[in-house]
Amino acid sequence: MAKQLNLAVFSCAGPVSGGHGGWRHPAADGDFLSAGYYARLGRMLEAGCYDMLFIADVLAVPDRLGGSIESQLRYGGLGALRLDPMVVLSAVAATTRHLGLGCTISTTYAEPYAVARALATLDHLSGGRAAWNIVTSFQEAEARNYSRAAHADRGERYARADEFMEVVCKLWDSWQDGALVRDKATPLFADPDKVHPINHQGRWFNVQGPLNVSRPPQGRPVFIQAGASDRGRDFAARWSEVIFVTPPSIEAALEFRADLRARAAKFGRDPDAIRVLPGILPVAAASQAEADAEKALLEELSHPLAGLSTLAYHLDIDLSLLPQDEVLPPQSEVPGVQGHYKEVAEMTQKTGMPLSKLGQRYGAGRMTAPFTGTGVHIADSMQEWFEAGACDGFMLQIPYLPGGLESFTRHVIPELQRRGLFRTEYGGPTLRDHLGLARPAAGG
Amino acid sequence: MAKQLNLAVFSCAGPVSGGHGGWRHPAADGDFLSAGYYARLGRMLEAGCYDMLFIADVLAVPDRLGGSIESQLRYGGLGALRLDPMVVLSAVAATTRHLGLGCTISTTYAEPYAVARALATLDHLSGGRAAWNIVTSFQEAEARNYSRAAHADRGERYARADEFMEVVCKLWDSWQDGALVRDKATPLFADPDKVHPINHQGRWFNVQGPLNVSRPPQGRPVFIQAGASDRGRDFAARWSEVIFVTPPSIEAALEFRADLRARAAKFGRDPDAIRVLPGILPVAAASQAEADAEKALLEELSHPLAGLSTLAYHLDIDLSLLPQDEVLPPQSEVPGVQGHYKEVAEMTQKTGMPLSKLGQRYGAGRMTAPFTGTGVHIADSMQEWFEAGACDGFMLQIPYLPGGLESFTRHVIPELQRRGLFRTEYGGPTLRDHLGLARPAAGG
Repeated sequence: MAKQLNLAVFSCAGPVSGGHGGWRHPAADGDFLSAGYYARLGRMLEAGCYDMLFIADVLAVPDRLGGSIESQLRYGGLGALRLDPMVVLSAVAATTRHLGLGCTISTTYAEPYAVARALATLDHLSGGRAAWNIVTSFQEAEARNYSRAAHADRGERYARADEFMEVVCKLWDSWQDGALVRDKATPLFADPDKVHPINHQGRWFNVQGPLNVSRPPQGRPVFIQAGASDRGRDFAARWSEVIFVTPPSIEAALEFRADLRARAAKFGRDPDAIRVLPGILPVAAASQAEADAEKALLEELSHPLAGLSTLAYHLDIDLSLLPQDEVLPPQSEVPGVQGHYKEVAEMTQKTGMPLSKLGQRYGAGRMTAPFTGTGVHIADSMQEWFEAGACDGFMLQIPYLPGGLESFTRHVIPELQRRGLFRTEYGGPTLRDHLGLARPAAGG
Repeated sequence: MAKQLNLAVFSCAGPVSGGHGGWRHPAADGDFLSAGYYARLGRMLEAGCYDMLFIADVLAVPDRLGGSIESQLRYGGLGALRLDPMVVLSAVAATTRHLGLGCTISTTYAEPYAVARALATLDHLSGGRAAWNIVTSFQEAEARNYSRAAHADRGERYARADEFMEVVCKLWDSWQDGALVRDKATPLFADPDKVHPINHQGRWFNVQGPLNVSRPPQGRPVFIQAGASDRGRDFAARWSEVIFVTPPSIEAALEFRADLRARAAKFGRDPDAIRVLPGILPVAAASQAEADAEKALLEELSHPLAGLSTLAYHLDIDLSLLPQDEVLPPQSEVPGVQGHYKEVAEMTQKTGMPLSKLGQRYGAGRMTAPFTGTGVHIADSMQEWFEAGACDGFMLQIPYLPGGLESFTRHVIPELQRRGLFRTEYGGPTLRDHLGLARPAAGG
């Protein structure tokens, strides 16, 4: 069978999934605090044969615009409210059978033993559907919620993350496959010869092990990462199996994927064992005019200060201190998401869009363009990116839930399936099966 | 309506629920790694109108017997395998409607922001059914899994726990009730005037806040604690709403409950706002002979080294170094569960039971006695304890799941209901409703 697209759906377990106006859309279901909401979402995703529900995270209400949380709260910004992704995804695991479950956890503010255990538990409970979006966290507000004097710089965060990965992999491998026997007669619950301490001693972590959970069905959860900086790309190339990125154009996506594959090869990995999923914000409807009207409505519903406060948090720059009638200036180094600054600055410079307009645009549509229209139009664009080698699939930032997802599933999915670009049923039980990724051997 | 019993069911998300032979019982379902197992358990508990599923925890495979994990693994000891309780309970939340969900989390190895957020998420998703079993952790093996040079002594652990509680309560109160508005038209997602940083600065924690989750349905989760030492009792009296204890006799239970109520009053609390639930290990059957035979079978299935290695971990003493043909000697201070050592030592001294026999007895039946028999017999004992003022209900350590729970639900629950001692349907949606506990005001 020809290679097919992998489709993940992005969410935040809060007001924003794709765009900042989404929660205000008439068809938006605001019930994102209840288990029933996520169960319904999970069932819709399985009906569409999607690979995975992905939940992003941040460990503070962002205060990067003028040092205040007010805009985020008042206008429903990306970080205004976020349920704990692991707790949400376990509820989804219990009410679905096939859907992959992508959970964001920070290596900067968590302990490797706790993370290895929570993800192993999710992988067991779900029968092999867990994925981990590895983040290093970059907000000062997060450091201030976790009793840290200051937040570590990028180099320190990634160095800690590398050691963190070594520890969790050792912990998942600390029970060999087959160590859990459960033989009632002998008795032999677990074979002690197949369970080993790890005795890790490093710069950040000293962990004896073994984990108190047997090796997960997938061996290890699927690793997801979204690093866009040079250091982030190396980390992704070394560890990640799914890479989430937000390129502003097909050219940028092509460059990114080629670069990541080359870096992966340098780390001794098979580039074909990596799935690059650009984030897009699709608005699908029965006609181009309807889709354009929906897109315009979503932009109108997106308050400028919601988007600007979220952009300030993504860049970790107080944008209220810059001239509001000018474009974002070139800047070689930013504290936040380095690669993202470059994309946004270039867009404002190219279009001449001043900061006062950027908030609404950023909040409503993010930076991607050609995915508004009919099923045929959107499928054309997706196919073009895919066949050009710009991606292995997409991270769908649906502008509001569940209505926007219903539209995408109704208009786009059948068109992709008709072209043989997307599955019509799940092939295997695990997320690795959906993604076509091998189960890692212990110690590998 | 007269006061009724509160019944919680103890589990470990691993091989042991009540007794160490349980996983070997012919009717035991060994599928404790799957979400389906917990969904079935949750539905059975709701059918019996139980208050709560309670999941204990430990952050290491215990190695306190001869410095080895072998006995725990080989014979299926209490700490051989433990899924993450929060992840398990969220799966139960998604598949039940009424059942309370009691989650164990350590204040020694977790961060208050993360704990406040996870429990708030569980309380939201479940519509107000979350409870937190607050533990301070006492195993050296746990410190060695969490990069600590040594584990802190009891005084330090409880001092940190007190500050931890202050921080999480401030975080849950950082969104006033009604702060989350979700008014699409205005727009007003959340009222910034009702969301406040907490700016906590203390000995262990510096936390700015606010939490990025709105105030939970129950205001705060229900607090559970099992401290038996003098310091533990004070902590429980100050913070806990449900107190789990394992008294060896009705006399010990009476003493404990009276003491806890008096201590609570000293902290300015209403003693009637506390529920003391002694742990019992009930074996119910249609006749006394059948129950006795079941009890004997469970003892036979319980390997002596499974129980001894668990006792060593509870006491945090290497029992392999003591003479195996002698009773447990009196000892004024032990590193582990102080109050528990006293109970076990007194029992061995009173009965003359040598250490070589204690492992099997401890592993099979723990220390409680009179709850083996018919529904009438067990209900008689429970009623006696309840009416004497020795308890407000029970923490049921069912010897194996789900079979032992089916027996208890079939034989004992209807007998308790017939006597008016237990509900026949749930009165309200939240765990606080089941327990008859008020919702705490913010800042209270």
